[in-house]
Amino acid sequence: MVSATPPLARSTIKFLKTPTSKAWVAQAIANMDTILLDHAQCERKAAGTAIQMMSRYPSSDRLVRELTAIAQEELSHYEQVNQWLDKRGIPLQPVTPPPYGANLKKCVRRNEPDRMLDLLLVSALIEARSHERLGLLGEHCPDPQLAKFYRSLMASEARHYGSYWLLATTYFDIDVVNERLAEIAEQESAILNMLHPEPRIHS
Amino acid sequence: MVSATPPLARSTIKFLKTPTSKAWVAQAIANMDTILLDHAQCERKAAGTAIQMMSRYPSSDRLVRELTAIAQEELSHYEQVNQWLDKRGIPLQPVTPPPYGANLKKCVRRNEPDRMLDLLLVSALIEARSHERLGLLGEHCPDPQLAKFYRSLMASEARHYGSYWLLATTYFDIDVVNERLAEIAEQESAILNMLHPEPRIHS
Repeated sequence: MVSATPPLARSTIKFLKTPTSKAWVAQAIANMDTILLDHAQCERKAAGTAIQMMSRYPSSDRLVRELTAIAQEELSHYEQVNQWLDKRGIPLQPVTPPPYGANLKKCVRRNEPDRMLDLLLVSALIEARSHERLGLLGEHCPDPQLAKFYRSLMASEARHYGSYWLLATTYFDIDVVNERLAEIAEQESAILNMLHPEPRIHS
Repeated sequence: MVSATPPLARSTIKFLKTPTSKAWVAQAIANMDTILLDHAQCERKAAGTAIQMMSRYPSSDRLVRELTAIAQEELSHYEQVNQWLDKRGIPLQPVTPPPYGANLKKCVRRNEPDRMLDLLLVSALIEARSHERLGLLGEHCPDPQLAKFYRSLMASEARHYGSYWLLATTYFDIDVVNERLAEIAEQESAILNMLHPEPRIHS
């Protein structure tokens, strides 16, 4: 029987300069409870970030509409991850965020329209990395049901990074987008070069 | 034929100290395009506020679950209001917020657990006032389809203010909740006592 799960092309995720290390996979699957708690926070933050962008660019019709759909999906994933925490008997609790998000934010230039481009591309890269890593959890997580859940999230994450990139090309010249994407992607991989000591989605 | 719309008890909305003036209704229905633009922003802000509270109280299980559902509904309303703007050919654009939200925030005490109680009650009151005013639009809006849309939103708004109040009673003694609610409700009515010169949901 052929598996319904598409093969994972984890080292060829569009946008990402370098693939995730085996060390991250080992750290994550050994600490699935913490990873789930951190993952819930990632989904909530992604919804909040999308809403912040709609608020910052309220006249940008396409951005508002695409990000509304993304925020809705992130909240639905947040709810599903919280249900997994409940199923595993893990009380909701905060986990300290890794430096990934804060360091990526440093790439965002302050003046418009550069700021808008950078915000879109930083979100695209975070979604691309999430897509890659949730795929790795879908492949390696020892709990088959949880692994299946992770595989089910992958399509959305892929759609999200595509949406952020498409939005960037809606408002900016494609060459400008791709040049800046390459610069931030370089930073994104550099930030993840040293594995964070705590297990996190973006450690 | 008896109307399917339930009678509006606009002067007896639970929590609110004083009913909305006729002047607000007149101002609003004479400026429905601006009201729709402002309403969209209210829904987006309500979703953002719910997510901020989940982020501030990540271990409060019931709060997280209830506010996830509320944020999802607010985003769905945001999407629907944006569709109405599109239908009426009104381009998305920012409108300056009235002083209502910023003035209500001044009621929020800084130290926990007072802060949590006040945040829940301020949100309860905003939802109660929205419920009242969307009901008035449902009754008086000259466009029958738009009036119907406003009536369709009322049930959610009523559920939302009930949820915020119930959350307050989950984490605080009911007498403490009701005493503080009465204090903030007094402020809320005082803030709306002078009609804001610009037409807004909370002018």
